[in-house]
Amino acid sequence: MLGLMMHRPLLISGLIEHAARFHGDTEIVSRNADRSIFRYTYAEAERRAKRLAKALIAWGIKDGDRVATLAWNNHRHFELYYGISGIGAVIHTINPRLVPEQIKYMIEHAEDQALFFDESFLPIVKALAPQLKGVKHFVVMAEDSDDPAFLSYEALIRNEIPDLEWPQFEEDRASSLCYTSGTAGNPKGVLYSHRSTVLHAMAIGAPHCFNLDSTDSLCPVVPMFHVNAWGTPYGAAYSGCKFVLPGQYLDGESLCTLWRDEGVTITLGVPSVWQGALRYVDENKTDFGSLSRVVIGGSAAPKAMIDAFEDRYGVAALHAWGMTEMSPLGTVATYKYKHKGAGKDARRAIRSAQGRPPFLVEMKIVDEEGRRQPHDGVAVGELHVRGPWIASGYFKDEAATAKAIDQDGWFKTGDVASIDEDGYLHIKDRSKDLIKSGGEWISSIDLENAALAHEDIAYAAVIGVYHPKWEERPLMMVVMKPGRALDKAALLATLASRVAKWWLPDDIIAIEQIPFGPTGKILKTKLREQFGDYKLPMA
Amino acid sequence: MLGLMMHRPLLISGLIEHAARFHGDTEIVSRNADRSIFRYTYAEAERRAKRLAKALIAWGIKDGDRVATLAWNNHRHFELYYGISGIGAVIHTINPRLVPEQIKYMIEHAEDQALFFDESFLPIVKALAPQLKGVKHFVVMAEDSDDPAFLSYEALIRNEIPDLEWPQFEEDRASSLCYTSGTAGNPKGVLYSHRSTVLHAMAIGAPHCFNLDSTDSLCPVVPMFHVNAWGTPYGAAYSGCKFVLPGQYLDGESLCTLWRDEGVTITLGVPSVWQGALRYVDENKTDFGSLSRVVIGGSAAPKAMIDAFEDRYGVAALHAWGMTEMSPLGTVATYKYKHKGAGKDARRAIRSAQGRPPFLVEMKIVDEEGRRQPHDGVAVGELHVRGPWIASGYFKDEAATAKAIDQDGWFKTGDVASIDEDGYLHIKDRSKDLIKSGGEWISSIDLENAALAHEDIAYAAVIGVYHPKWEERPLMMVVMKPGRALDKAALLATLASRVAKWWLPDDIIAIEQIPFGPTGKILKTKLREQFGDYKLPMA
Repeated sequence: MLGLMMHRPLLISGLIEHAARFHGDTEIVSRNADRSIFRYTYAEAERRAKRLAKALIAWGIKDGDRVATLAWNNHRHFELYYGISGIGAVIHTINPRLVPEQIKYMIEHAEDQALFFDESFLPIVKALAPQLKGVKHFVVMAEDSDDPAFLSYEALIRNEIPDLEWPQFEEDRASSLCYTSGTAGNPKGVLYSHRSTVLHAMAIGAPHCFNLDSTDSLCPVVPMFHVNAWGTPYGAAYSGCKFVLPGQYLDGESLCTLWRDEGVTITLGVPSVWQGALRYVDENKTDFGSLSRVVIGGSAAPKAMIDAFEDRYGVAALHAWGMTEMSPLGTVATYKYKHKGAGKDARRAIRSAQGRPPFLVEMKIVDEEGRRQPHDGVAVGELHVRGPWIASGYFKDEAATAKAIDQDGWFKTGDVASIDEDGYLHIKDRSKDLIKSGGEWISSIDLENAALAHEDIAYAAVIGVYHPKWEERPLMMVVMKPGRALDKAALLATLASRVAKWWLPDDIIAIEQIPFGPTGKILKTKLREQFGDYKLPMA
Repeated sequence: MLGLMMHRPLLISGLIEHAARFHGDTEIVSRNADRSIFRYTYAEAERRAKRLAKALIAWGIKDGDRVATLAWNNHRHFELYYGISGIGAVIHTINPRLVPEQIKYMIEHAEDQALFFDESFLPIVKALAPQLKGVKHFVVMAEDSDDPAFLSYEALIRNEIPDLEWPQFEEDRASSLCYTSGTAGNPKGVLYSHRSTVLHAMAIGAPHCFNLDSTDSLCPVVPMFHVNAWGTPYGAAYSGCKFVLPGQYLDGESLCTLWRDEGVTITLGVPSVWQGALRYVDENKTDFGSLSRVVIGGSAAPKAMIDAFEDRYGVAALHAWGMTEMSPLGTVATYKYKHKGAGKDARRAIRSAQGRPPFLVEMKIVDEEGRRQPHDGVAVGELHVRGPWIASGYFKDEAATAKAIDQDGWFKTGDVASIDEDGYLHIKDRSKDLIKSGGEWISSIDLENAALAHEDIAYAAVIGVYHPKWEERPLMMVVMKPGRALDKAALLATLASRVAKWWLPDDIIAIEQIPFGPTGKILKTKLREQFGDYKLPMA
């Protein structure tokens, strides 16, 4: 027997419609390429998204057609999010930090009909455009276009009237596409739906996740070209909060100034961005103003960073974990009822792990035979996940899909983890980054975090290298803070106080810089190419 | 084109499964009939709900079968919520304050297969049981049963093993049934679905609604037999907060003691309950302990009550508005971004109106021709609503369904309201309670609220009575606070400072008590029976 409730689909257009109608005068603020500030409201943003939608329809863009973007976090990108998905087309956000061949591969694989790009990416687009036969429209996201080959965004929407009613359709329809830049093989496309996007927006808004209230001022530093800026362009409209977009200026000074000027209360991004922000605030003896919390994801946050935010500046540091295939929210390190009266150390321990899943994310760790392991903090295995905002496969890639889904329909994350008795996730490593020494596993991530506890170390990376006796042993690479020199013995002593003795790296090398991938993760493949043949000193 | 996201249905069983797995040791506390306190955890509650589910399956209860409850807010009722809906059957919660004929009507109309009831309702059930031919099982929600005709709840589940896996099915399936006790005609059944219930739980949990965090201790005083205690048994599991159930003891002392003992941070109920709680705290010169907010709904909250909570006790008073047909959440009086720096008066004005809708509730006010009116705070019309947790009709009642839904598929609330420029709803009256004086409308609710601003008035009610010149004029009935006498001139002066002069009632009568209906609303039909022929003094 069916319930007698209205059949209203969960659509992305409903989010902007709600924000425009009930938070019509709440501001969206965006830093322009020339560093000036653009500001308007949800009501105006919706009207411009509708004008864009009408221009797309006039081009003949229809249900399921892909439209690509190559852009920073700015107000036109926000309008593209709603204008494209709102008419049933699919927004394909591309990471401009990828190499041109990868960008070309993704545009062709996605069969993009149009490409919208920021002026700063003009050189990339100019070089690629002649090879992109399938792309019918190139639009530079600016007032005017200097190049007759490219239309400007403002010229495109200038004559459109915002009299569109957002079409209604089934919520399972595709809305957005984002490729993961794997370290091996071709990028794989994750195809989100309206349903997954709306449920995810409701989830990140919850008090036990990012706690997005209508009175917040939210600034996503995580890019809109990377997993939809962790869902914040949708979460902002869901909660009706003020929305602050930093454009292309992600250095400490630019961010801290923007946050202060716009009363930002919550910001989100990867650890490397926060390093810059903390350095700026430290050096300038200032503080984070109205900022009450910072969400740290993408890579594990070093404990020292969490301590700096919470102890020095009174900003809650919320560790989060997810994946492109998870929209991305998997877990957030928020407290449970039992932690209400807990001491600082117990609470800090919660903050330092990856956190716990919100409702609708199911997770299990499995052994090599796929058997579910207990939540005891001891059992370690591969993490498998399930839920309505988790990928059931990859776009036009049956082989990758087959590899990613287990026999029960759960997604195999490739992460090795444990889950403790309170349900908190502890990521040990990417399965391919684990080091197997004498048949036992060593977590490169745990070693890296332990190294960052030493005050001279800016970055650390650990890979496994060949060892004649133990098969593999850890080799650590570190980048020193300015003016500091590597003292191996002191660093080993720091490590020894934090990890098992047999985990200690067999050697430590100071290097100039750690290679980071386009989403801010350490490129271990690069390190393995360079140091994989490193000959360990034999004890 | 469909997205490539997992198809996971939104099921009520998923809520308790999540709470049991990730908040397994968080407490559920319940006051027993003998006033003692029962306490256990989400993990134990889920196990007992599974044992109950297995007993129901053993009886032959299957998809869509209705199982009734006649019970207070207690832990067994909580288990019934999950055990019944979890297997795809429908929990039919009955308001025990209704007259026996209405209860009988509802059980027969719903075709209930079984009836679970608290011991305190034994007399009602004993009297009705012989007439309820369709009910195959009667279960008293207690350890033992003194009456051989009735099984006890504990005996029913005692030998069941909690080895059930919650079945998976489509989310549009019916989950629960609640009848509205209309003042005219037969009660009408609202049939909720798993989808509507889960989305509603996510909505009430949001920061801009009830803001349910995992660290909260939540106490619903609003009964579980009335619109699912406003969704709190689901919202509690969604957020993983502590859940405190007051049983049948809703007087000020019992509630305040429970809240203090269990560290309650949020509680919900109707104004008449809060009168009692405020009186207790006032008289005993105590405070509300850890309580940070109280949600007031069911009837409009007098401004004096909001002031008392916020100014005297530092407890945020959140006005909420909804209907059984809306699951019930329609609006909550929470602040928007623009109110951050607003002064006390502006903020209090927000608190005193009905509030604004969360995402997924759409609302419009329409004129007599059904045309949408502007959000300008001036235009007044009937309020129509739409959304995934709003009724599309009534159970087995085509005539009532046809009357309730407008030509565009929106639900006609029967309330007359305006919506201001900021999207806040202002309920003026039930359309049938408006007073039409000389062709102009007078709001009985506004007059009642104005009267409550006078310190001598405990309750006020206004009805329209015949007037030879103006057709209808307002007559006010008041209940005085203990020891106070009615001073008409003083009360009229208070009213005159708050409403238009031509709204002032033509007469005011002091009465012993106001008749309240089973959900705490003033029974104007009763007042009209008694005072409808009242002869107004002619000026």
